[in-house]
Amino acid sequence: MDETAPAATGGHDASAHTAGHLPPHGYTPAKDEYLKRLRRIEGQVRGIARMVDEDTYCIDVLTQISAVTKALQAVSIGLVEDHLAHCVVDAARQSPEAGAAKVREASDAIARLVRS
Amino acid sequence: MDETAPAATGGHDASAHTAGHLPPHGYTPAKDEYLKRLRRIEGQVRGIARMVDEDTYCIDVLTQISAVTKALQAVSIGLVEDHLAHCVVDAARQSPEAGAAKVREASDAIARLVRS
Amino acid sequence: MDETAPAATGGHDASAHTAGHLPPHGYTPAKDEYLKRLRRIEGQVRGIARMVDEDTYCIDVLTQISAVTKALQAVSIGLVEDHLAHCVVDAARQSPEAGAAKVREASDAIARLVRS
Amino acid sequence: MDETAPAATGGHDASAHTAGHLPPHGYTPAKDEYLKRLRRIEGQVRGIARMVDEDTYCIDVLTQISAVTKALQAVSIGLVEDHLAHCVVDAARQSPEAGAAKVREASDAIARLVRS
Repeated sequence: MDETAPAATGGHDASAHTAGHLPPHGYTPAKDEYLKRLRRIEGQVRGIARMVDEDTYCIDVLTQISAVTKALQAVSIGLVEDHLAHCVVDAARQSPEAGAAKVREASDAIARLVRS
Repeated sequence: MDETAPAATGGHDASAHTAGHLPPHGYTPAKDEYLKRLRRIEGQVRGIARMVDEDTYCIDVLTQISAVTKALQAVSIGLVEDHLAHCVVDAARQSPEAGAAKVREASDAIARLVRS
Repeated sequence: MDETAPAATGGHDASAHTAGHLPPHGYTPAKDEYLKRLRRIEGQVRGIARMVDEDTYCIDVLTQISAVTKALQAVSIGLVEDHLAHCVVDAARQSPEAGAAKVREASDAIARLVRS
Repeated sequence: MDETAPAATGGHDASAHTAGHLPPHGYTPAKDEYLKRLRRIEGQVRGIARMVDEDTYCIDVLTQISAVTKALQAVSIGLVEDHLAHCVVDAARQSPEAGAAKVREASDAIARLVRS
């Protein structure tokens, strides 16, 4: 695998990962950990559907949904940190313009996260 | 009073419902709708895991997580409304004390929801 | 002060408080406590403006805004609980229709709160 | 440029800015705009206290608190964007280590914001 290519890790450049250049995104080094957390969350959502199907008391269903929402937020916060630490920092080191573009994009994502 | 129905009351007191007739909970009449929404959310979470597995760009993953969080919040808000409309109103009509107990429980769930 | 009038505490009836009938709303018994908390929040917001005016480090300003947001949320959660405990319960005890109307209105407010 | 001014750096290291030239923080160029928004928010909080003092209907008070919470969030989101665009990008351009330290600090602030 050719690792000499200047992997455009700061950019949303598809070519950065089509050829297996590592790591293409901020979260890639922790990918297995994220997958494990997302599968646990998927199981929790399935559990909530089962609770509803079995007529579990409303308040208990709500408690479980709050737990899943918190778990999803924790994943988002981790992804944001990884994104800032890799994509944004790399872009900033490339050029002020590249940094500014990545910052704007990240800020929009953070705004959606805060409002959701 | 016929209490032989296998009321899956999930931890609350079935006798709080004046005659224990189904539907046992506020959300029961809309159960199928809730199940459909939860299954869609489960599929969305699975889709997010797939995005991570395929090294999708961080920002796109974040956008999807925000969408799922919003969908879960909408389910919670629906459950709260159903709970107030049925469990809380029924309890209030039974006695002020029963109403007060249900209100306290509902308020705690709402607080968790607002903070999650 | 005439306390014999059947204070329409379950309704958003202006006449319920124009003549000083007590207590017109769910939060009225705790009014002084709410006023104290809101004045503290007002002072915190003024303190944040001062921080910005004095070029305080961004992160420290953000920490203070998070504290104020949490304090406002706590006030909201208290108001919701008081509203459910008084206005909604009273309306439910008056008639199922009055209860349903109050529940819908409270649910909309809770939805705004969860989404804000 | 006079560097003798008592730069109110609010706890961070002024030397992190290449030469301590003003503006010292990300939000400084938009300081007047932030001050205007914060004073409007302060007035809104005072208005909410007045509503409570005048026994305004609970739901109307809640609506106003949601509006203030949203306004505060908008200020936070703006400050985060300015912080990333200036402090974090500048630190990243200085050295990877400086960038990493600023990213960690910013991520913690974003996490507090998402959870508040």
